[in-house]
Amino acid sequence: MIQNLAKIKHKDSPNFFLIAGPCAIENEDTPRRIAEKVLKLTDELNIPYIFKGSFRKANRSRIDSFSGIGDEKALKIIQQIGEEFDLPTTTDIHEPFHAEMAAAYVDVLQIPAFLVRQTDLVVAAAKTGKHVTLKKGQFLSPESMKFPVEKVTDSGNPNVAIIERGTMLGYGDLVVDYRGIPVMQKYAPVILDITHSLQQPNQASGVTGGKPELIETIAKAGIAVGADGIFIETHPDPAHAKSDGANMLQLDLLEDLLKKLVRVREAIL
Amino acid sequence: MIQNLAKIKHKDSPNFFLIAGPCAIENEDTPRRIAEKVLKLTDELNIPYIFKGSFRKANRSRIDSFSGIGDEKALKIIQQIGEEFDLPTTTDIHEPFHAEMAAAYVDVLQIPAFLVRQTDLVVAAAKTGKHVTLKKGQFLSPESMKFPVEKVTDSGNPNVAIIERGTMLGYGDLVVDYRGIPVMQKYAPVILDITHSLQQPNQASGVTGGKPELIETIAKAGIAVGADGIFIETHPDPAHAKSDGANMLQLDLLEDLLKKLVRVREAIL
Amino acid sequence: MIQNLAKIKHKDSPNFFLIAGPCAIENEDTPRRIAEKVLKLTDELNIPYIFKGSFRKANRSRIDSFSGIGDEKALKIIQQIGEEFDLPTTTDIHEPFHAEMAAAYVDVLQIPAFLVRQTDLVVAAAKTGKHVTLKKGQFLSPESMKFPVEKVTDSGNPNVAIIERGTMLGYGDLVVDYRGIPVMQKYAPVILDITHSLQQPNQASGVTGGKPELIETIAKAGIAVGADGIFIETHPDPAHAKSDGANMLQLDLLEDLLKKLVRVREAIL
Amino acid sequence: MIQNLAKIKHKDSPNFFLIAGPCAIENEDTPRRIAEKVLKLTDELNIPYIFKGSFRKANRSRIDSFSGIGDEKALKIIQQIGEEFDLPTTTDIHEPFHAEMAAAYVDVLQIPAFLVRQTDLVVAAAKTGKHVTLKKGQFLSPESMKFPVEKVTDSGNPNVAIIERGTMLGYGDLVVDYRGIPVMQKYAPVILDITHSLQQPNQASGVTGGKPELIETIAKAGIAVGADGIFIETHPDPAHAKSDGANMLQLDLLEDLLKKLVRVREAIL
Repeated sequence: MIQNLAKIKHKDSPNFFLIAGPCAIENEDTPRRIAEKVLKLTDELNIPYIFKGSFRKANRSRIDSFSGIGDEKALKIIQQIGEEFDLPTTTDIHEPFHAEMAAAYVDVLQIPAFLVRQTDLVVAAAKTGKHVTLKKGQFLSPESMKFPVEKVTDSGNPNVAIIERGTMLGYGDLVVDYRGIPVMQKYAPVILDITHSLQQPNQASGVTGGKPELIETIAKAGIAVGADGIFIETHPDPAHAKSDGANMLQLDLLEDLLKKLVRVREAIL
Repeated sequence: MIQNLAKIKHKDSPNFFLIAGPCAIENEDTPRRIAEKVLKLTDELNIPYIFKGSFRKANRSRIDSFSGIGDEKALKIIQQIGEEFDLPTTTDIHEPFHAEMAAAYVDVLQIPAFLVRQTDLVVAAAKTGKHVTLKKGQFLSPESMKFPVEKVTDSGNPNVAIIERGTMLGYGDLVVDYRGIPVMQKYAPVILDITHSLQQPNQASGVTGGKPELIETIAKAGIAVGADGIFIETHPDPAHAKSDGANMLQLDLLEDLLKKLVRVREAIL
Repeated sequence: MIQNLAKIKHKDSPNFFLIAGPCAIENEDTPRRIAEKVLKLTDELNIPYIFKGSFRKANRSRIDSFSGIGDEKALKIIQQIGEEFDLPTTTDIHEPFHAEMAAAYVDVLQIPAFLVRQTDLVVAAAKTGKHVTLKKGQFLSPESMKFPVEKVTDSGNPNVAIIERGTMLGYGDLVVDYRGIPVMQKYAPVILDITHSLQQPNQASGVTGGKPELIETIAKAGIAVGADGIFIETHPDPAHAKSDGANMLQLDLLEDLLKKLVRVREAIL
Repeated sequence: MIQNLAKIKHKDSPNFFLIAGPCAIENEDTPRRIAEKVLKLTDELNIPYIFKGSFRKANRSRIDSFSGIGDEKALKIIQQIGEEFDLPTTTDIHEPFHAEMAAAYVDVLQIPAFLVRQTDLVVAAAKTGKHVTLKKGQFLSPESMKFPVEKVTDSGNPNVAIIERGTMLGYGDLVVDYRGIPVMQKYAPVILDITHSLQQPNQASGVTGGKPELIETIAKAGIAVGADGIFIETHPDPAHAKSDGANMLQLDLLEDLLKKLVRVREAIL
């Protein structure tokens, strides 16, 4: 995927690439600090990097969950980060009209897992000409991701990747089916989302839980089986983040994680 | 739910109510014939009836699946059926702006299962003042349906119901967890969708399969446990329908099914 | 199944048959009182009845769980109950040598769900000539129960039935897949175990949990879809029973349950 | 686990250890050739090695599946291989009386996944004083493996390990939940069974299927997350093996696999 992505650095690195940033854009300063820190790390480690931030959280369990600071405001912050650090950027969209709106600010449009079967949304993203990442639905088999990929390519856009984020295992768990990574790589590059794959859905509180202590475990397995990229949400202070605090990696821990993953990557080349 | 629904007949019947019609509105004649036939049956059996038709199929697996005859055209057909037969009607919506559009034509707005976590969509439907039915996500526990219901009621709309349509059991099966029906009835009336609960998702062909020979089985179980309503897609010639042919009940078989369900209903009163 | 079972009463009743008794045989008195009470109820309701008790609990999660009062002692209590009340009886066996041992005391041998793939055990049970009930493994599809049934019939024993007791839904839930009941009835009569189908496995305490308030729900669904029999564990004081207290029905509540199920049964004939 | 295992070589190697051999002992020659070849490879790669062979297949789906050449005969072949090559050996047992019988021939007793909740069997194995490996039930959570481990240690035997072999994902798939490996390592060393984790259960034929092309994928993930050992069934000609042909690795491919796994192992130390 990254070969056609302008602005991305370390394109010829044998490493996996990285999509990282906060869950939601909560303010101007935090995402900027995250981007700066991740960029420094990925430059040192020779890892191609795409900055990620959500301009709007549209699918919270509860109506009183934080949903954003305003679409345009958040998108502009993402755009400024891309310009300031000369980085490609990505955000997720939730309705077809978001596609063109967000495409004015970012380089990669992400389709959320619950929405990956919505043809209008996928086609709208594809038609912007931007790169498209498709999160695998928690209810889809790896083989079924062939069809959303084709919705992008049949719309004339060859720049598509799949993000694995776990499969429903009963009501309370998601499990990454690593057998699916080589299967899906027949259709498109595969990125492992090591943040949302650890969610514990359907919690009684209406707030999705998580198991962040297992981030390293599921990330290493993903690199070992040959995932093309890693997606991670990170924050200087996850406990006080306004969304997904349960699973974001503390920013200070990212360096150690990436170094370990680079070593595993080297072992499979 | 039906107590506040204008136009519905047999309101005081001890029977379950029925939401029935074709999957998609493919033309003018077929849905009209279906409505006429179902109305006659439900009048004989004293069953409150809501006509159902989709104006647009937005979440097909494949890009080349049939998606509709035009939104406005299809909505007008549904409206005419409602007027001609003096029936309440319902359709499913896929984007927030659909809510107001569809509310001009129908009495009940249905939120699809994949989209039931999209706050903007649920709130937009609630704010039209129309009745709202929420399909339980295949990835949600019964307990988790409390939160989408609250998104409707917190928007000032008390007229909400839940439609059960099965839970993912691995990649290839949906299973109805009947334990969930009394659980969800604490939040809202529960309707059992006996068409989509029998889907076999993630088929290699990219076309969802089904087991229509089991319609009677899962419907009887639903009535026996006290479901408030039944949702069924029916068609005079399912094999030639443009969508969901794999699971629609042949219209000729509906009378026998309803009579059997009425008997089970009587046994639990 | 019951047509060839000596001693069973109400053979020509259109009702479902009943397998009921305590989980484990804890002493002499409690099972006797249970049998007496259930027999009285089933005589009034015209329900064929088989008394059930486990002589040994072999598969507890924890080593310190109650496992029994002694095999021979418990089997003799079951036998005496059968003789005193002129009732057919059943117990579950866990090793091939148990088959002949238990066959000296009871009329029906039950193969536990975890063990239904153990050929030696199933064949040993079949060769006693006693009736055999096979619990569907929580890990088996309905279609796969064809093979254990054939292990019985290929051993020359035609008297076999299947007991449905739920399918794993992730780690924490069992779900009854009612679609499987008509599927399995192609191979043998099907009995619904309304006690163990409500288990909540893999609890942190090492003691399996349950949802006994849902007994009526899953039982009604089973009768509505045409199950041939119902299996239930019942106890005068479940909270103080030595095993499976979490799911046994209080004996005082059995009459009401059976009356409701008889009404549902009548509705499907 | 291997620290207390007599005869095992390369005890101080930083590598994972290996349990490998054919599924069933079909004859004298094939297992001998397998042991010889694997021993040579593991000596070169500095991998501690335990020879594995089943003396009896007790849980086949179908009654006409191959079950063995005779218990004693097969156990003697395993013993001879252990003596000739000075190797520790292991086999699986299915009934409590097998424990002492098999303990006379092998060094490690393996409890099958379906049977891991059978207290009598686990305790009988533990009391032989041999090392015990417990396969995680396909229906158990990682946390629940604490209890079978305690059944071994409470019997006075500290030498116990857990073998992960996948969790039911619906009817047709097993999935390895890699999150469970560090969880279970709190209780005992964890070995990943890369043969049976790839099974496709509940096939219409009554013969369990598989996906052997994914062996490398799931093995690399296991080593990356820190599994202590790898369990693999291998055969010179899997297509003609009498059981589990669908998943055994061709013996010729083992060298390449082990070399790749050693590289991943080095990357995580």
